Amino acid sequence: MELHGGNIYKIGKQFNISKDDIIDFSSNISPLGVSETLKKEIIDNIDMLRNYPDPEYFDLRKAVADYNGTDSENILVGNGATELIFLFARSLKFRTALIAAPAFAEYAMALGRAGTKIDYFKLEEAEEFVLDIDHLKKSLEKSYSLLVLCNPNNPTSGFVDSRKMEDIIKTAGKHGTAVLLDESFIEFVDRKLIASNTKAFAGYDNLFILRSLTKFFAIPGLRLGYAVIFDGDIRSKLNKNSEPWTVNLFADLAGRILLKDETYIENTIRTVNDERKFLSDGISNIKWLKVYKPYANFLMFKILNSLTSPGLKTELLKQKMLIRDASNFKFLNDKFVRIAVKDRQSNELLINKLWSIAE
Amino acid sequence: MELHGGNIYKIGKQFNISKDDIIDFSSNISPLGVSETLKKEIIDNIDMLRNYPDPEYFDLRKAVADYNGTDSENILVGNGATELIFLFARSLKFRTALIAAPAFAEYAMALGRAGTKIDYFKLEEAEEFVLDIDHLKKSLEKSYSLLVLCNPNNPTSGFVDSRKMEDIIKTAGKHGTAVLLDESFIEFVDRKLIASNTKAFAGYDNLFILRSLTKFFAIPGLRLGYAVIFDGDIRSKLNKNSEPWTVNLFADLAGRILLKDETYIENTIRTVNDERKFLSDGISNIKWLKVYKPYANFLMFKILNSLTSPGLKTELLKQKMLIRDASNFKFLNDKFVRIAVKDRQSNELLINKLWSIAE
Repeated sequence: MELHGGNIYKIGKQFNISKDDIIDFSSNISPLGVSETLKKEIIDNIDMLRNYPDPEYFDLRKAVADYNGTDSENILVGNGATELIFLFARSLKFRTALIAAPAFAEYAMALGRAGTKIDYFKLEEAEEFVLDIDHLKKSLEKSYSLLVLCNPNNPTSGFVDSRKMEDIIKTAGKHGTAVLLDESFIEFVDRKLIASNTKAFAGYDNLFILRSLTKFFAIPGLRLGYAVIFDGDIRSKLNKNSEPWTVNLFADLAGRILLKDETYIENTIRTVNDERKFLSDGISNIKWLKVYKPYANFLMFKILNSLTSPGLKTELLKQKMLIRDASNFKFLNDKFVRIAVKDRQSNELLINKLWSIAE
Repeated sequence: MELHGGNIYKIGKQFNISKDDIIDFSSNISPLGVSETLKKEIIDNIDMLRNYPDPEYFDLRKAVADYNGTDSENILVGNGATELIFLFARSLKFRTALIAAPAFAEYAMALGRAGTKIDYFKLEEAEEFVLDIDHLKKSLEKSYSLLVLCNPNNPTSGFVDSRKMEDIIKTAGKHGTAVLLDESFIEFVDRKLIASNTKAFAGYDNLFILRSLTKFFAIPGLRLGYAVIFDGDIRSKLNKNSEPWTVNLFADLAGRILLKDETYIENTIRTVNDERKFLSDGISNIKWLKVYKPYANFLMFKILNSLTSPGLKTELLKQKMLIRDASNFKFLNDKFVRIAVKDRQSNELLINKLWSIAE
């Protein structure tokens, strides 16, 4: 059982498949691949490696700030969003936290190491894992030190619009509760919906917004995430505990280039929106599978027949397709699977293969 | 005052010099630049970025282990040696530590954050900053939880051969003292000397050897360091506190390629040895400067006339040469400077400029 998806190295060795031949539905990476502009810039500037990164990441933080319509001083960059989750947990040492779950395992791991007592707010299967906001607000009356939300949520792909999210943040604030809002997948959400954006939340000093370039820009190998924090006290606690040069120079370059590449951004949103619909519709037509309404670049489904998620994973690996057995997520079991939205050809292959499996 | 050298970004802006025009003597990076083999491999494999790194770094740890004549299980890789210093301090929470100083500032910072009480073992100017081993062994009778040594030492460039180092490690062990031995610059030491090597220290379970690829292979922009640890208990404590995917894929690739490139390695050792002698001899001839015997790819000198290190730094920046004002190292003052060994042309430029400054 893997804690994360995407370990094509181990799977490749276990199943004797070259890792480059694996069609990886298990990690939530944009199907558009690495931007050609970025590749060219890296190649043209390869000698930059002989320098240390700018320890203050001045230009990178400016690029991130511009993209988010805020000031550089509100931005903290990290070696992937993961570094920032651990830095946040370690620096602020919350007494208690409420995590909406099923959720990315790293929140509980980071908070647990920092000695935080963790409660879970359960997303109910009976409610199709949609966040029950009234119920959540009721739970916040317990005055937790921290609330953790991922939006869209991993692994359910559920989504809360920014007006409702603001209501939650405001309620949390009233109870003295900080909010870690992980928006690693927010850019994949259909622009017709009111997606959260950092500008709208600018007034809230109990908020730590987490973003990632890994998924949307298909650069998990480079490692780049950032946080938007409006409160000076939180920022200075984080800065006091941060470590130097954690973002490598190519990731620094990537941030400065990719966030300005509007063509690539628009193309990604459109493609992922189309393919999400295609994949979701295709799987919804299969009677022994139930799909939960997806908003990000991945979707979760439940197996309704006698198959299990590990069983289905093994079956699909025969066709070199790797899915994320979601049974180790809190409140899920061995009937749940998460898959990334990929390109049309891969999505068709998966749908066809699923069709071919008898009910 | 900068905590580290190499901030060409800030200096460039402050002094209105393009960062690429700065001749950077302030960061201790090999003058040979990034290996052509590595550049070609990165360019040929640029699409690998769309994958996550192997969370277990299986092949990378094997390459590091082979290079060090040990087993993969003894190897931990990190996002630069810096990540490993902080991980080590945070995971093992030493009660007390003795740091030989002047030393790299990061040891005290990492240990301080973890609540460790820090004493310093002073390298005496009267002894030319050479480590007094008998005196150190005497100090170890106080049974510190940890001893921190850097060999060759940054910023003094002093060196202890591996027989003497083994004696220190053994003595520390007798007093229940763990040893953090930072060998980030060890590969630059003349091979005619008995340099420390991981094989020789294989028996010691109180030892944490730290290595870096940043300096020797001139890849500070990529971030790659590793630790060699023979004790299973220490390793499991570190693994329990480590964070996923901290080493990016290009750094992973770099480790697998560079450590096997014997031509590049031999060429680096020979060039740096020649240039260290050239630079050291050239500066030693200047009456108002005193050079301490260097063993790494950098050297420290003292200004004997009325100039200060910040003053000399400003003076040299007029020629676009950046040196490391060493006045903020523990036990040093504004008479001390550290400079990296660079290529012949740069070294000559610096010597000539120093000659031209009146006594």
